[in-house]
Amino acid sequence: MEALKNAILERGQVVGEDILKVDTFLNHQLDVSLLNEIGKEFKRRFEGVEITKILTIEASGIAIASIAAQYFNVPVVFAKKVASKNLDHDTYETDVFSFTKAKNYKVRVSKKFINEGDKILVLDDFLAQGRAALGLRDIVLQGGAELAGVGIVIEKGFQEGGKVLRDQGIRVDSLAVIESFKEGAPVFE
Amino acid sequence: MEALKNAILERGQVVGEDILKVDTFLNHQLDVSLLNEIGKEFKRRFEGVEITKILTIEASGIAIASIAAQYFNVPVVFAKKVASKNLDHDTYETDVFSFTKAKNYKVRVSKKFINEGDKILVLDDFLAQGRAALGLRDIVLQGGAELAGVGIVIEKGFQEGGKVLRDQGIRVDSLAVIESFKEGAPVFE
Repeated sequence: MEALKNAILERGQVVGEDILKVDTFLNHQLDVSLLNEIGKEFKRRFEGVEITKILTIEASGIAIASIAAQYFNVPVVFAKKVASKNLDHDTYETDVFSFTKAKNYKVRVSKKFINEGDKILVLDDFLAQGRAALGLRDIVLQGGAELAGVGIVIEKGFQEGGKVLRDQGIRVDSLAVIESFKEGAPVFE
Repeated sequence: MEALKNAILERGQVVGEDILKVDTFLNHQLDVSLLNEIGKEFKRRFEGVEITKILTIEASGIAIASIAAQYFNVPVVFAKKVASKNLDHDTYETDVFSFTKAKNYKVRVSKKFINEGDKILVLDDFLAQGRAALGLRDIVLQGGAELAGVGIVIEKGFQEGGKVLRDQGIRVDSLAVIESFKEGAPVFE
């Protein structure tokens, strides 16, 4: 997806060996026009696949999923990382290890929102080790629903997540796959 | 806004004396069609007001702000509650007390994203005690920007936040104002 790759090259920032900051347009400040292009592209990639719901994880997946959902005409559910008085006690839970935050955290979805018969598209901003996507799949399966696929904005192709998911038969569509960082710039597959 | 009030009455749930759960459409599962109507209504309310950026707070403000931003044609910035390796160290910070979570938490915005000359619209899902909105205003002012207004989906009119903000000369537009809960159902102003 050219517009996305250009945004990464022009507005992204490589920090150290393997961190790509995209906070100018994807996960702190949000370029809503680009998110619309991303949403349309997810719809194009998953054309013909039955999707009843989009599942993502707070916080950076929410904008991507919400804008994309306009093209799929389905509701979004986002998994919560923080317990709250307002959250149902009756939840599906799973543990996810975050390499960025260097800790394990629990994510939860109210049982009301994942049901048998649901065909769920998981959307997220990054795929690196694949832990968030595997956690969301676990929640989908706990709810007796089907994982229709995983849509990722930026996949770090040099990390194992993509392979781990695809080896388990999960359909993964990434709009930009970074093969490596060379002299401080991403190189796409 | 009738569609919103109907959603609150039909799909919301009053818990105890003062908690309104709207997790079926606003802050866990997201009804993206309704969010579009909400976004259009914010645009109508703030017609003629110069807005250069929308500021909200993770997690439940993000979908509302992102969908609304499509009608304002401006970027969204969301304040972060969780520190992360990927977040700039150079941030505006403020403390916010959450009554729902019963604790103080820090919110942060990278200094890159709030600038002199910005006219900022703050959007959020709920207004109760007004602490989140005041925190976001503090960040706007630290950045030398101007607070153009505060747009709220659901205001709890029986709590003090709306009065506190309006008494300070802040323009607050709430799409649904709940005056009280009567026999387990919200009564609108």
